[in-house]
Amino acid sequence: MPKVRTNPGGAATDLHLGALDREAGGPLHRQIERSIRAAVREGRLAVGSSLPPSRVLAASLGVSRGVVVAAYEQLVAEGYLTSQAGGYTRVSAGPQAAPAAAPAPPPRRPAAVVDFGYGRTDVSQFPRAAWLRSLRRVLTEAPSEHLGYTSGQGDPRLRAALAAYLNRVRGTVADPDDIVVCAGYAQAVNLIISVLAADPGPRRPIAVEDPSGNDDVWPLARAAGFALAGVPVGEHGIDVPALGTLDAEALVLTPSHQWPTGGVLSAEARAAVVRWAQRTAALVVEDDYDAEYRYDRAAIGAMQGLAPDRVAYLGSASKTLAPGLRLGWMLLPRRLVAPVTAAKVLADRGSPAIDQLALADFLDAGELDRHLRRMRPLYRRRRDALLSALARHLPDFRPAGVAAGQHLVAWLPPGLTEEAAERAAARVGVGVYGIRQYRLNAPGPQGLIFGYASLSERTIAEGVALLAGALP
Amino acid sequence: MPKVRTNPGGAATDLHLGALDREAGGPLHRQIERSIRAAVREGRLAVGSSLPPSRVLAASLGVSRGVVVAAYEQLVAEGYLTSQAGGYTRVSAGPQAAPAAAPAPPPRRPAAVVDFGYGRTDVSQFPRAAWLRSLRRVLTEAPSEHLGYTSGQGDPRLRAALAAYLNRVRGTVADPDDIVVCAGYAQAVNLIISVLAADPGPRRPIAVEDPSGNDDVWPLARAAGFALAGVPVGEHGIDVPALGTLDAEALVLTPSHQWPTGGVLSAEARAAVVRWAQRTAALVVEDDYDAEYRYDRAAIGAMQGLAPDRVAYLGSASKTLAPGLRLGWMLLPRRLVAPVTAAKVLADRGSPAIDQLALADFLDAGELDRHLRRMRPLYRRRRDALLSALARHLPDFRPAGVAAGQHLVAWLPPGLTEEAAERAAARVGVGVYGIRQYRLNAPGPQGLIFGYASLSERTIAEGVALLAGALP
Repeated sequence: MPKVRTNPGGAATDLHLGALDREAGGPLHRQIERSIRAAVREGRLAVGSSLPPSRVLAASLGVSRGVVVAAYEQLVAEGYLTSQAGGYTRVSAGPQAAPAAAPAPPPRRPAAVVDFGYGRTDVSQFPRAAWLRSLRRVLTEAPSEHLGYTSGQGDPRLRAALAAYLNRVRGTVADPDDIVVCAGYAQAVNLIISVLAADPGPRRPIAVEDPSGNDDVWPLARAAGFALAGVPVGEHGIDVPALGTLDAEALVLTPSHQWPTGGVLSAEARAAVVRWAQRTAALVVEDDYDAEYRYDRAAIGAMQGLAPDRVAYLGSASKTLAPGLRLGWMLLPRRLVAPVTAAKVLADRGSPAIDQLALADFLDAGELDRHLRRMRPLYRRRRDALLSALARHLPDFRPAGVAAGQHLVAWLPPGLTEEAAERAAARVGVGVYGIRQYRLNAPGPQGLIFGYASLSERTIAEGVALLAGALP
Repeated sequence: MPKVRTNPGGAATDLHLGALDREAGGPLHRQIERSIRAAVREGRLAVGSSLPPSRVLAASLGVSRGVVVAAYEQLVAEGYLTSQAGGYTRVSAGPQAAPAAAPAPPPRRPAAVVDFGYGRTDVSQFPRAAWLRSLRRVLTEAPSEHLGYTSGQGDPRLRAALAAYLNRVRGTVADPDDIVVCAGYAQAVNLIISVLAADPGPRRPIAVEDPSGNDDVWPLARAAGFALAGVPVGEHGIDVPALGTLDAEALVLTPSHQWPTGGVLSAEARAAVVRWAQRTAALVVEDDYDAEYRYDRAAIGAMQGLAPDRVAYLGSASKTLAPGLRLGWMLLPRRLVAPVTAAKVLADRGSPAIDQLALADFLDAGELDRHLRRMRPLYRRRRDALLSALARHLPDFRPAGVAAGQHLVAWLPPGLTEEAAERAAARVGVGVYGIRQYRLNAPGPQGLIFGYASLSERTIAEGVALLAGALP
């Protein structure tokens, strides 16, 4: 209702209602409803106060009485007003304080000029045109029943496309029946942990690499009541002899490129992990988080292919395409397919249908291969720029885990701590981040994580030069 | 590797490898890897058995020795083979039994000719062209940063579009800061229950309407350790006096169109529910599941507008557009926004970015209003066809809850049970479903739920006629 003019002396003014705008569109009674509702909410009409008889308000507003009656009835139905004996209409709901303004966000440190933060896939390279082509084909061609409630496990067409892709590119043993589609890695471990937690047996810990990602498995396992057991990580991934004495429900592992230190688990170690898992009836959760980005040699096949009944393989489109897609997949030992699907149904009924079909089309059309062929040299050049800059400006930093992925670790020279490096970097607008927050128990050398995927070669070189100049 | 011909007497035959196909594309060493990997997996190469020296296999296959060395090295890295002192290469991983075939699905009863099952939005009417236009605009125009990791709470553009839509159409008091985007109703109640469960105080029950939907709140609340308290439902929604004595953490409510019985909670009852919630510090969870489909009068404003600090309002695109979109929203009391967002981040990091932006564009362009204007008369005609058919063929059935939604309930005449009606209907290929599975504790009359949204008027009439002919 416009705030243009009032009707002096009339009932509408008592109600602080503006005049009706007959040009505004929408029925007149809706305009009246809206005004009264606002007056109640804002406290201009107190609880218990009477409204003018409908006849009086109608005359005041110059509308027929039926219009006001309709407005009152609607507001009675909504609980703002009550009709009382004698034809009185009163305000029955109290005003609501306007929601308090959101607290001011905490002061942020000045934005880094060059931020080597991890996890920043270069989304400016997202293949928008190809993705739109897949969406168009899906919306043009997919039968309507695909748009109904999803199956929980995932659309069969996507599961078939994923099985073909993973068997071809990742050396898995994948049957579409053993795949569950999900919203990405975080949801995958969430669902698997919830299934493990539902097991009535004694609850063994969940083992993680130490250091490892701290924002999904750690809080999820703890929230589900599991203890965390850290398995120390060395140059070549986890310390397998340390597994020997461990009795764990599951081991979450990044065998092809340990996160964050970049080690590759050796063949012997992989076989030993599988033997351990078979001996102790543990589940190996293989986080294949950046398998598609290896630069200096062929990709290493997934561990899942060695022991499909012991390994749950998890992948997603977050690193290869864009995190915002929220599409991931699990390739599971068959005994876990039904319970994980049930957990997915309870969590969100299943992943979005159109997105799933678009990814299936995108995979089947070879677009993911094409995109990866384009991205690998781009990321490789950025990695090379980072390695050159480190060699030039910070020759006593020791880079590790450089063969793959979207980040590397640089071990620091003696006497330089992660905190000191972070602080010095921040002073010159460079964001670098130590490993310590990813360490569960095992101590280890001081190191910084450099994410490079979304930075240009020039920015990378500048950032390292700035950092070198700022260090004590 | 093709199964065309073998190389008699050579090492390749010992390995049961087929000949190399130089036309097949892909490097030769990858073909060899694939064959050996398959032989190990299928058990044709036993654990511990030796492979031929690379020189011998190379000669046998007619390739250079380097090709075989590369293949062996890759398989060593993957853990299938080990290199041993003296240059021997052995199989180190055991074969995996092929995954057991999936068990045959249980025999299904013959598909119903006419299925009045609930929850079948007519997805054949999904506005594909308009949705594709929104997707195209998003993929053409949205800045890349929207494709990165999502915020958990939801894209600001969608939250602003939803607040405007809900305030206009549903009479809510919505600020974009109080909205959390999610995957639909099931995820919304999942997240809210997980937040309530994290409260350290004594755990009060979660109250639900009796009868009510049995496949989300019931199992989720129980899994989180809450008792369920049923509030009996009458002709006009829940029995509010029964609330008086109830001490519950939350009350899950369908005030505008009780599910499944269709009652509308009166103004007095709404105000009383709010007073109860304020007195007992309970949360009212308002499931506004089919607010957009009212046929005989204007929509009733959401309860949230009466008490934004006590009511969590839940809506989704599942009934208005398509369940397969998996897009829903929560409008929360401000104190719940941060914990529910944190729960969403842990669950799946946030809803898909492109879908969120597409819905924002779709809402801002007025496409949802347009779609609803098109769908209301369509569903209304189907409802009218159902009411006519019931009046004609089953005049002693008493329809209820007919003013809105995508289903109605028909109360059965004395002497006819839900089971008897279901069985008789199934014999003639008609699917109808009793209320009893949705009753928690409170007894109530016998009734059948008729979903009509995805059936043509003709099919509806035929189905009711068939049912009438089949009843005892």
